[in-house]
Amino acid sequence: MVDNSIESYLAARNALISEERSIRRDFRELHKATDAELHADQIVRAIKLEEAKTIWAIDHPDTPNVFPGMSYLSARSLITKTKIFQLISKMPKGALLHSHLDAMVNAADLLKMALEEPAMHVKVSTRLMVSSLESTMPIFRGLKPSEYSDESSITSSTYVPGTWVQIRRARESFASEYGGSEAFDAWVIASITINPKEAYETHNTVKKIWKKFENTFEIAEGFTTFFPLWKKYLKEFFMSSIEDGISFIETRLNFFLKYLIDAKGEETVSHRDLVVTFDEVVQDVKNEMNRQGRPEAFIGARIIYATLRFISCEELNWYVDDCIELKQEFPHLIAGFDLVGSENDFKPLIFYIEPLLRFKHRVQELGIDLPLILHAGETFGDGSEPDSNLYDAILLGTKRIGHGFSLAKHPRLIELVKERGIAVEVCPISNEILRLTSSVCTHPLASLINQDVAVALCSDDPSVFGNMGLSFDFFQVLMGSDINGLLTLGMLARQSLEHCTLDNAEKARAITLWEKQWAVFIESVVDGRVFAT
Amino acid sequence: MVDNSIESYLAARNALISEERSIRRDFRELHKATDAELHADQIVRAIKLEEAKTIWAIDHPDTPNVFPGMSYLSARSLITKTKIFQLISKMPKGALLHSHLDAMVNAADLLKMALEEPAMHVKVSTRLMVSSLESTMPIFRGLKPSEYSDESSITSSTYVPGTWVQIRRARESFASEYGGSEAFDAWVIASITINPKEAYETHNTVKKIWKKFENTFEIAEGFTTFFPLWKKYLKEFFMSSIEDGISFIETRLNFFLKYLIDAKGEETVSHRDLVVTFDEVVQDVKNEMNRQGRPEAFIGARIIYATLRFISCEELNWYVDDCIELKQEFPHLIAGFDLVGSENDFKPLIFYIEPLLRFKHRVQELGIDLPLILHAGETFGDGSEPDSNLYDAILLGTKRIGHGFSLAKHPRLIELVKERGIAVEVCPISNEILRLTSSVCTHPLASLINQDVAVALCSDDPSVFGNMGLSFDFFQVLMGSDINGLLTLGMLARQSLEHCTLDNAEKARAITLWEKQWAVFIESVVDGRVFAT
Repeated sequence: MVDNSIESYLAARNALISEERSIRRDFRELHKATDAELHADQIVRAIKLEEAKTIWAIDHPDTPNVFPGMSYLSARSLITKTKIFQLISKMPKGALLHSHLDAMVNAADLLKMALEEPAMHVKVSTRLMVSSLESTMPIFRGLKPSEYSDESSITSSTYVPGTWVQIRRARESFASEYGGSEAFDAWVIASITINPKEAYETHNTVKKIWKKFENTFEIAEGFTTFFPLWKKYLKEFFMSSIEDGISFIETRLNFFLKYLIDAKGEETVSHRDLVVTFDEVVQDVKNEMNRQGRPEAFIGARIIYATLRFISCEELNWYVDDCIELKQEFPHLIAGFDLVGSENDFKPLIFYIEPLLRFKHRVQELGIDLPLILHAGETFGDGSEPDSNLYDAILLGTKRIGHGFSLAKHPRLIELVKERGIAVEVCPISNEILRLTSSVCTHPLASLINQDVAVALCSDDPSVFGNMGLSFDFFQVLMGSDINGLLTLGMLARQSLEHCTLDNAEKARAITLWEKQWAVFIESVVDGRVFAT
Repeated sequence: MVDNSIESYLAARNALISEERSIRRDFRELHKATDAELHADQIVRAIKLEEAKTIWAIDHPDTPNVFPGMSYLSARSLITKTKIFQLISKMPKGALLHSHLDAMVNAADLLKMALEEPAMHVKVSTRLMVSSLESTMPIFRGLKPSEYSDESSITSSTYVPGTWVQIRRARESFASEYGGSEAFDAWVIASITINPKEAYETHNTVKKIWKKFENTFEIAEGFTTFFPLWKKYLKEFFMSSIEDGISFIETRLNFFLKYLIDAKGEETVSHRDLVVTFDEVVQDVKNEMNRQGRPEAFIGARIIYATLRFISCEELNWYVDDCIELKQEFPHLIAGFDLVGSENDFKPLIFYIEPLLRFKHRVQELGIDLPLILHAGETFGDGSEPDSNLYDAILLGTKRIGHGFSLAKHPRLIELVKERGIAVEVCPISNEILRLTSSVCTHPLASLINQDVAVALCSDDPSVFGNMGLSFDFFQVLMGSDINGLLTLGMLARQSLEHCTLDNAEKARAITLWEKQWAVFIESVVDGRVFAT
């Protein structure tokens, strides 16, 4: 009798677990999985279990306190040594739907590009001391020839703070007691990235790390607002994304500045110029992929028009009109509209309700396909202004939600995003470094996936965080749950394409091309070729 | 027209927020709130906002990285200075439903009690060095007179490691180069508590901090298994809980050891002796409260019979029978049955399915009211064994869930606990110190409250964490959400009584008495008397 009841208990248990798991889309689709997919999934689960023991449960001299899914900046060097990471690096990722264009190129590469620009200069506003190197920030700018100085070093005893020095010369002449050129590179890179000590010790609150985060943008702006560099930068962003398996991009371009700086140091480059150049670079990269015989590697890229959430309503109206004008001229390039910047410190969406409703009216009147794609809920607050942005984003008909970190706390909004097919652009590494969660394990992503909320995995600001591409984010998502497997990652990649702004025909083509890449990838996992290079 | 649509937008927005908030029980009950309650709630919200600026947004010399709801061990000294804490300390808390009896008395008080016991001895197993004081752990035990030694110091150069020294003498003779008696106290207290450096730096993973956590129990066991001390300890636990506003207690008593040690150092004190003594102490404290003219301050206390989750199924059957026997003799004292110890490291519930089903069958056959009250989901895992304990706890008909940290990830189980009226014993400070969450702000509690899951707020192991009583846990819950207010805390206190194991008549009486306390408390908030002492 006891045995009988154990049997019936186990049957009830399996039924309950299956019932709950069947809510997840990857489980609902399991019966459609090919044998190769199921096999690949098993292979990955086995490697993950093995590495949980061989890597994530032992002491490492340089990395204390390890565990699977641990804080990214501490774990980075270990992650890159894993077989799981090697495998995920080869995975076709689908679309990257949440990124900020001014933070998309590896900091060291960006510096290299800047060193090639004769107009690019650097200055410091206080005397640079060996002891204060860490706390003194460089200022960069592409100058007019008339502004060039004869000064050749920012470390010389005769340097007058505030004087521009050509960046190439400043690097070459960076005094040896400061550490020479290498120290210059390290100093610049540290100023535009967040390191583990900052994230997890000195700046270990949302407020403090955001200060550092915003600082990296202010400094890098010297590079990213210089148009000759911008164009090369854009190409590098696309090319490196493609190498990571990203085949389509919708990136937030911050149009807050009305002009970028041209080769002569003049502020002449208009928003229209940027969009035209964006178009050219997309076409250039497509051509290159065609030449390489892999057109499926790059479907294209689009711009989510963004401005900053501290402007006035009147100013926002100007940007709305500017965005609509660009959309009308470049319908294939302008994907949507957003407001960016700290939700915790700046204005909530409700502050802009008048211009945002006006935006919707105008878009409707003109009959153009220009959705809002709004940041909302990038906070661990509950009932706070940034949390309440979720109500407004959804009521304003946002196509996707940027971050939506606090969405998991909202039972009614979860129902609404499911009913309305709104995807959440989840950025696990960004959220962790910006101190919303201590690791991916406590990120609300698992809750969203278990509830079948559509999720697109995103990197947010990889040049600041060092999570270039999407491999690191996919890696963390795999490590942060025992339910998630390779097929979950595939589902997330596919979802990113399903929720992009391409029209139905383009989207169908993009998904078909991704499916081909995916099938090749699955084969390479099954036959082990994925580990060959 | 634009204005009109703003009006209708705002109406829709208010409706949506209200619709979602109305899922929360405290919002549903808002219309029943008295004027005084609403007034008190506003007073508390105003103080909270003020202190967010004056305390939680400024730099403190000894406490870096502050924010409202920040990690408890770092914030403790600031918390105790706040008006909010002063106020919450006076709040009637209802029942404490999740605590481990071996971790309920302030470490310094426990040491003082131990120093009063002539039989209580201490030893170290390796020579105690000034440099290794932190890493050498004391071992305590109540000895038989025949085991007493003449040794009078554990720091003398002639001390032979492993030799027992009377604790009082060891303290008095603790050499001055080690810091003298004060250093002895600090050394003992550090060995049975977790400090911020351990929690947030050296042991900053679930696995590592659990090692330290388990260590504190092993060391304190020398005190808590000595019956003469146990009895005083129990009274101190009840009295200090009452002073914090706790009026009813269901505490996990770990019956793993079959006998405690009597005054003569012999292992003679049976489980039955413990229950009889528990009964006496409860009665003693009730009498004292009656004498003090405040019978409402202590409704009573009950035992949740617990053993450790690493034993065999056969051994568990013995404990089950032992528990049922005690329940039959002391129906008013034995509240339920549980398995305790790390869910991550020890056996999952499914391992014990045979003895647990047998438990249920026997309880049913005998017609006794003895529920399972199981720990489950004390993990940030997703689909792991400890996470899956939630399926078993619910299927086995648990009356409440101990911790349920991972429950918020389970859409189907959330529905089930609501349908079945299962409350979750949430221990925010414990979860934070044991590294499941970096602060209360990212604790899933907000998600559970927003979904109207019944929650009882609990302290878990306050002697180890320093969160004596429930005031610190209530404080953190208030700080971790902008929705939560004083009435939310009141709802949580009331829920703890609604979900205790008292029968309906007793429960109704307990709630009525709490309501009287609550009304007095609300008055004291409104007229400011709460801040008078």
